[in-house]
Amino acid sequence: MAKELKDLTKRSVSYSQWYNELVVKADLAEQSDVRGCMVIKPYGYAIWEKIQRALDDKFKETGVQNAYFPLLIPKSFLSREAEHVEGFAKECAVVTHYRLKTNEEKNGVVVDPAAKLEEELIIRPTSETIIWNTYKNWIQSYRDLPILCNQWCNVMRWEMRTRLFLRTAEFLWQEGHTAHATKEEAEERAKMMLKVYADFAEKYMAVPVVQGVKSETERFAGALDTYTIEAMMQDGKALQSGTSHFLGQNFGKAFNVQFINKENKLEYAWATSWGVSTRLMGALIMTHSDDNGLVLPPKLAPIQVVIVPIHKNEEQLKAIDEKVDGIVNQLRALGISVKYDNADNKRPGFKFADYELKGVPVRLVMGARDLENNTVEVMRRDTLEKETRTCDGIVEYVKNLLDEIQENIYLKAKNYRDEHIYECDNYEDFKARVKNGGFFLCHWDGTAETEAQIKEETQATIRCVPFDVEQTPGVDMVSGKPAKYRVLIARSY
Amino acid sequence: MAKELKDLTKRSVSYSQWYNELVVKADLAEQSDVRGCMVIKPYGYAIWEKIQRALDDKFKETGVQNAYFPLLIPKSFLSREAEHVEGFAKECAVVTHYRLKTNEEKNGVVVDPAAKLEEELIIRPTSETIIWNTYKNWIQSYRDLPILCNQWCNVMRWEMRTRLFLRTAEFLWQEGHTAHATKEEAEERAKMMLKVYADFAEKYMAVPVVQGVKSETERFAGALDTYTIEAMMQDGKALQSGTSHFLGQNFGKAFNVQFINKENKLEYAWATSWGVSTRLMGALIMTHSDDNGLVLPPKLAPIQVVIVPIHKNEEQLKAIDEKVDGIVNQLRALGISVKYDNADNKRPGFKFADYELKGVPVRLVMGARDLENNTVEVMRRDTLEKETRTCDGIVEYVKNLLDEIQENIYLKAKNYRDEHIYECDNYEDFKARVKNGGFFLCHWDGTAETEAQIKEETQATIRCVPFDVEQTPGVDMVSGKPAKYRVLIARSY
Repeated sequence: MAKELKDLTKRSVSYSQWYNELVVKADLAEQSDVRGCMVIKPYGYAIWEKIQRALDDKFKETGVQNAYFPLLIPKSFLSREAEHVEGFAKECAVVTHYRLKTNEEKNGVVVDPAAKLEEELIIRPTSETIIWNTYKNWIQSYRDLPILCNQWCNVMRWEMRTRLFLRTAEFLWQEGHTAHATKEEAEERAKMMLKVYADFAEKYMAVPVVQGVKSETERFAGALDTYTIEAMMQDGKALQSGTSHFLGQNFGKAFNVQFINKENKLEYAWATSWGVSTRLMGALIMTHSDDNGLVLPPKLAPIQVVIVPIHKNEEQLKAIDEKVDGIVNQLRALGISVKYDNADNKRPGFKFADYELKGVPVRLVMGARDLENNTVEVMRRDTLEKETRTCDGIVEYVKNLLDEIQENIYLKAKNYRDEHIYECDNYEDFKARVKNGGFFLCHWDGTAETEAQIKEETQATIRCVPFDVEQTPGVDMVSGKPAKYRVLIARSY
Repeated sequence: MAKELKDLTKRSVSYSQWYNELVVKADLAEQSDVRGCMVIKPYGYAIWEKIQRALDDKFKETGVQNAYFPLLIPKSFLSREAEHVEGFAKECAVVTHYRLKTNEEKNGVVVDPAAKLEEELIIRPTSETIIWNTYKNWIQSYRDLPILCNQWCNVMRWEMRTRLFLRTAEFLWQEGHTAHATKEEAEERAKMMLKVYADFAEKYMAVPVVQGVKSETERFAGALDTYTIEAMMQDGKALQSGTSHFLGQNFGKAFNVQFINKENKLEYAWATSWGVSTRLMGALIMTHSDDNGLVLPPKLAPIQVVIVPIHKNEEQLKAIDEKVDGIVNQLRALGISVKYDNADNKRPGFKFADYELKGVPVRLVMGARDLENNTVEVMRRDTLEKETRTCDGIVEYVKNLLDEIQENIYLKAKNYRDEHIYECDNYEDFKARVKNGGFFLCHWDGTAETEAQIKEETQATIRCVPFDVEQTPGVDMVSGKPAKYRVLIARSY
């Protein structure tokens, strides 16, 4: 399976095509023969596992426990919360039967009409309804609260236009669902989990994010507040990378989850939910990668260091093997994931291109002359810089280099992002510029009408009211009405 | 939520009821409002996570990589392999539509008839078909082989009679699917994974298992050979705890997966698949637990050591807290999972019963007198033995005790199992005894007729031809015909 680099479309030619090709060529994922459903290949899944492990640890540090709730949700559950059903009914996969039978021609199977379900079941698009139906039995008193559950699972939303990782009918995610005795505690939890997501995005994925709160229009169906982290891709478009919802008592009321509070009165439980999905893989790929392929942050790279020998004969290879063995063992002792690729069926040039394509952060090459000189060639994937270094202290050097790469790609992404955030007070100016990408900080009058007009005329949407912007009142650039604050507007994935 | 021990049915009264109650009372799982689908509660899921982590590491040591394939399978894929569809068609959940719409009364949702799928999709009961349809594109040459993929996921089989963990419509599992260039390599892999399962069952779950190969009747639908591990529950019934299948070229042919072999000829790829599921939780519970509740093997216990203070006043508690702090830190430094439960809202007696119910392997209790004497009371859950020991060296003592408990419950289960394996050569004798449980080693003539007769007349089935039994030819106890070997027969879950 030769993967020729020249086949990878350059970002400058088509950023969109570059992404689509890269996901497949780097062996991350591919379309399956099931409409809109992807296959996550081992290399892509290895990155997802690293994401899962790191996030899971962070959730647990805040007291969250994992659990598992049913894949299928009775249709009637969806209708209990009015906005929720409105938001999800149009994209639900529906199970109507529970049996197949042999067809009359005896050469295939058909749905057995006798096995029709009394009530149709929906494949979960998200699990608030089935989980709150369960919590009903778990919560009687404030002493039973808080409940802090998370599940890692698959969900399904029947999207008409799909793209690998960014928008697929089935995707993998985690969904946290918490129940609280007070409004304050629930709001605090929703914000806490947003912070967990933001920290993870910045420190592990090296993806800088803007934290903020969604407008009413863009809220999760059933939420009172939706908090979001928004990342900027290299084409200047926004990618919503994680959301955390304060659900108020909406689901408590819909599923009649009442408890005796400290004042000995019956009260509906307060809720949050929060999730990130395999969409994060899209953010990771699009933030850092280049025309040579993936650039992975060392903290999430399945292979952090690859070592390739260059040799003319078996004897040379044997000597290099021995030398490299020591380096490999020392790197592993530091917890660094290393691959020594001395396979004989591929040329070094092919290996170099392949590991570049796969985004391995550091490459070491050792040839016969290196062996003589006690040196090794070190290449860092983020800058593609090469240098020849002595093997003395190489292990510590590589360890530090991994940290440096992690930091460097974060700063590079942050600089790019910061250079493409603009304050803008003129709608004509905005309309001319927004199509080229970037985040625009604009005064907004707070009305859904203005929001709809912007979307209609520019395909850009209000991503959030950012938290960390010093806000001053002003004038809405579209309506000319008074505006209390600026919002972040951008085209998005 | 008071959980009164006296409410737990004794095993001697009804083993079946004892199990059903224990799963719920120990907070492992509960029925959901979706027929046959369970909710795995945080404490149960924490055990499952430990199972997953340990198995996943072992799979990876053998070169297996994780991946993810679609939940939904086109109906026509199932029909490609004749035995496979025969085995699974009768228990498939079928997706027929992809959208709901508001009903005419505007108070609920109905299936939108306009959103009918052209071809129905099946929720995976197992993934051979969708995976081999994918492998078709991954395999061209013997150089692309082997492929060693595993996925952790949910599957669905529409069972009519369900029991928590043992038989549920939806369950969690891992399914490994490998593709090989030769028959020998595939057979070797199928056997290798059975050994991984057996080692895990015995060393982590402390559950002794009989390894063997299934009769043709009991094989996986589409397999040439099914290898199995069979465990004995405390009622003497067998529980099939993991299976590994040599699939020959059945799926290679069904999905036209051909490759150029070393002799430059086109050949169909050879396959294996292998899986264990949340059923293991059932095996774990039923093998070790007693009338006081769960008994968990230390290697899979979410909490390995619980420490409970007994105090008359705040001052005493503060002193105990300080003393216990040091012990907790030392235990944690050894990688031992400890909970110090000094919560004031429950009496010590309640805590004792609760942690016994939950199967925490070691309990330490420290009272005011202990504090004075520098002692602590140690209770081990497996034998319920208590002793008072000096705090000097208590950490090492507890560490060793955990190992001892792990070993002890394994030996206890193994002794029980071995005492209930019988050679039997007389069918009347067999019929009289098999209803009381136990594994029977009996000569079998190898015919499906005899096998069916035994099942019909005794509800017992051939569990496997065991590997580790010295076989001598004999006479089938039912038919009187010559028999080449003995098989293991038992009633089963």
